[in-house]
Amino acid sequence: MVDSGSVTRVLQRLRSQLPEAALVTDRTRLRTYECDGLLHYRVVPALVVLARSADDVRTTVAACAAEGVPFVARGSGTGLSGGALPHADGVLIVTSQLRQIHEVAPHDQRAVVDPGVINLQVSQAARPHGYYFAPDPSSQQICSVGGNVAENSGGAHCLKYGFTSNHVLSVDLVTPQGDSVTLGTRAPDAPGYDLLGAVVGSEGTLGVATSVTVRLVRSPESVQTLLAGFRTTDDAGSAVSAVIGAGIVPAAIEMMDALAIEAAEAAVACNYPDEAGAVLVVELDGPAEEVEHEFAAVERMCREAGAFEQRVAADDDERAAIWRGRKSAFAAVGRISPDYIVQDGVIPRTALPEVLREMTRLADERGLRVANVFHAGDGNLHPLVLFDESAPGQGERAEELSGAILDLCLAHGGSITGEHGVGADKAKHMPKMFSDDDLDTMQLVRCAFDPDGIANPGKIYPTPRLCGERPGKHTGPHPVQAAGLGEVF
Amino acid sequence: MVDSGSVTRVLQRLRSQLPEAALVTDRTRLRTYECDGLLHYRVVPALVVLARSADDVRTTVAACAAEGVPFVARGSGTGLSGGALPHADGVLIVTSQLRQIHEVAPHDQRAVVDPGVINLQVSQAARPHGYYFAPDPSSQQICSVGGNVAENSGGAHCLKYGFTSNHVLSVDLVTPQGDSVTLGTRAPDAPGYDLLGAVVGSEGTLGVATSVTVRLVRSPESVQTLLAGFRTTDDAGSAVSAVIGAGIVPAAIEMMDALAIEAAEAAVACNYPDEAGAVLVVELDGPAEEVEHEFAAVERMCREAGAFEQRVAADDDERAAIWRGRKSAFAAVGRISPDYIVQDGVIPRTALPEVLREMTRLADERGLRVANVFHAGDGNLHPLVLFDESAPGQGERAEELSGAILDLCLAHGGSITGEHGVGADKAKHMPKMFSDDDLDTMQLVRCAFDPDGIANPGKIYPTPRLCGERPGKHTGPHPVQAAGLGEVF
Repeated sequence: MVDSGSVTRVLQRLRSQLPEAALVTDRTRLRTYECDGLLHYRVVPALVVLARSADDVRTTVAACAAEGVPFVARGSGTGLSGGALPHADGVLIVTSQLRQIHEVAPHDQRAVVDPGVINLQVSQAARPHGYYFAPDPSSQQICSVGGNVAENSGGAHCLKYGFTSNHVLSVDLVTPQGDSVTLGTRAPDAPGYDLLGAVVGSEGTLGVATSVTVRLVRSPESVQTLLAGFRTTDDAGSAVSAVIGAGIVPAAIEMMDALAIEAAEAAVACNYPDEAGAVLVVELDGPAEEVEHEFAAVERMCREAGAFEQRVAADDDERAAIWRGRKSAFAAVGRISPDYIVQDGVIPRTALPEVLREMTRLADERGLRVANVFHAGDGNLHPLVLFDESAPGQGERAEELSGAILDLCLAHGGSITGEHGVGADKAKHMPKMFSDDDLDTMQLVRCAFDPDGIANPGKIYPTPRLCGERPGKHTGPHPVQAAGLGEVF
Repeated sequence: MVDSGSVTRVLQRLRSQLPEAALVTDRTRLRTYECDGLLHYRVVPALVVLARSADDVRTTVAACAAEGVPFVARGSGTGLSGGALPHADGVLIVTSQLRQIHEVAPHDQRAVVDPGVINLQVSQAARPHGYYFAPDPSSQQICSVGGNVAENSGGAHCLKYGFTSNHVLSVDLVTPQGDSVTLGTRAPDAPGYDLLGAVVGSEGTLGVATSVTVRLVRSPESVQTLLAGFRTTDDAGSAVSAVIGAGIVPAAIEMMDALAIEAAEAAVACNYPDEAGAVLVVELDGPAEEVEHEFAAVERMCREAGAFEQRVAADDDERAAIWRGRKSAFAAVGRISPDYIVQDGVIPRTALPEVLREMTRLADERGLRVANVFHAGDGNLHPLVLFDESAPGQGERAEELSGAILDLCLAHGGSITGEHGVGADKAKHMPKMFSDDDLDTMQLVRCAFDPDGIANPGKIYPTPRLCGERPGKHTGPHPVQAAGLGEVF
């Protein structure tokens, strides 16, 4: 555990280097940072630093390193796995004021941005040149590029374009020891280890990004969007298999089940096909002739798989209307249930029908309902477990069901997270997916960057231990203590 | 330095666990392993182990770890940067007998193969199902998948399809401490650090791959190949810029200059356009309609950029004939020059005309000639420095020019290697590209995996040092000593 005197000493160091306005110490103001998008984990940080520059970040990390005080970086705070959950005895470094777009270089297909720049702003800056930034999490209007880098964010269009890790060329990183390094280059296949790859998705445990060079993707010549209504998720799943099996890679292919459709209708009146047991949203993009050719094939495959209604967006407004239902789905669930948990798991696409049936059985056993929204093309499920916190025992049953769904994904050869990260929420599930040797090997890298264990401790890994130990000997402090998360776990 | 008694003790350990036939100790036989494709670095290993299974690899590495003896893994030995150059006091682990294809699963778009499986055999096994393995180094008929993983191999078609790192889903790795771990998963965006990414391209310094799960790519519906002759490399470069600038991503876009064409003609009579100062080979693949549409645009752009002759391959034989000239180019240079150095560097595509002019000037100054063959689409140059070893001083001047070409690439914001790796050859150039802090950070990871520095020491990094040191204090043994490479550097 960190003694509270250490944070006081960090504060003293920072007072000589940063203006008072950059330091938040008031308990009431500190409380506004107590959670990110994962609302049921809350920890008030000991100190918040509102960084105004990369130098501020470096100064703060160096002070933490000197005093052995944990730090957590936070962008817009929209993460869904608690990656930016503060440490009770640590410093929260907020990067949302680092918001400058330094360069947009369309000919070199890149942009250089501060970590606090909003995801969508990158695309807006690139659009006049005919380019955009591909990763598109649902939160793209508010989430930060730094957060995207930390969580390796995905989105509906990642089936075709890949995750954030496929769109970051270089990162300036402040390491947990307070050094500034540049990882990655603008050349393909840079020599040396791909440390940039290890850092993207490391959820703040290897350092804090202070500058991000992203890859820009050319805006497609043509985009076509189809909404198809099916009687069952099995039928919709068959359509997905047919499309992918034909070698077509849609920009996005999204499925919603009946309950998710009901929620979206209640929230945004998206006017999806009546009586649909499932809908698919299929978007193709690329050269006009290719899109036209493949779109005809997709329509035929949907029809053959049992689609009883298909609508094609005639223009951008109609396209936006189709997407509105899908993009509102998470929040919309609040219209049909007082409380809900957003789960995130991955299964092989071919296991979809079986997993959905089994999920329904697990929910029925517990007297609960699960709405399903998913990136069908890559098997990334987002089950929404509905419950009522005020009904005795439902909260616990929902939490338990949510975990059982992850076990189900793993049993089918899948993963405990598709794009939301592990964070504070799923560290306990990591040993189900990885062997002790696998986790030990990851720990080697964490210790290499952060021998004192001060960079976002308690996230990702279930058993933080002292870095001097040899792998295989789990004798470190209990994770709950080590992470300073005793109050919430 | 390793005492020779250590290797003797490794041999004693292995004799109790491996058959005598797997152990090569005879000096004459050992000599056959003294170099890989980088012919001018030669070191005879102290012991060679011909592994027959993953267990043999693990047994060997464990014995090396127990005795503190360096080991180097070798697949087919085709690497061009000396990554598989043996260690004089170490063990060379040859994986070429691990040659089984364990699974070809087209529906899941993957294959599971031993590290010694030949690159092309993966595609041959997948072809009946309509799939192939995308990375295609020129040596694909003989190079191994394990070697591809170590060097993150590229190839002509990597412009569109990416390097090996984009096509490996999972690797079973024997770590330098003798543990077996599985890195990566079959799910997108697996949680935890992307250690698989760090291992692919780590040139054998983080362990030895014993099983590789590769991604299979669907064979394209249509392929079209164009050979275009230009007066100058500037004209050909303009065509490349026009194609890429139009948002077209060819499967390959390769350029050869006059001297490379002359060499290819001498070797394989490829019958390229007479009087051409440069040729482009442009290949498009994908859905037939898309290919047809874009191919017309490419032909037009080549014409507008000054192509005086264009030929379209009418069938696979004609396509093979066009590629024959390109693929033979490295070896063909032997027809026009007694000796040559294959260089490998990267520049931003937009700097091509200036870099080529400057390269000619550097060669002229030294009375030497440079033939150029390159992956024009991604700016990956392969200058071939021609010289005559028997002419006094020419060898040194060629070596010096070869280094000056890398400096030229770096001065234009490029990289010291595009796809051949750093290996033993370019470790000395790493500090030109990376700061001390950057190199220190890479070293953190090497030390995490390999605290005793026994996994392929002397490769990639210019200043190996004891892992107990804190970064920033370069007090380790001199690299030449540390690497046991005193005789060759």
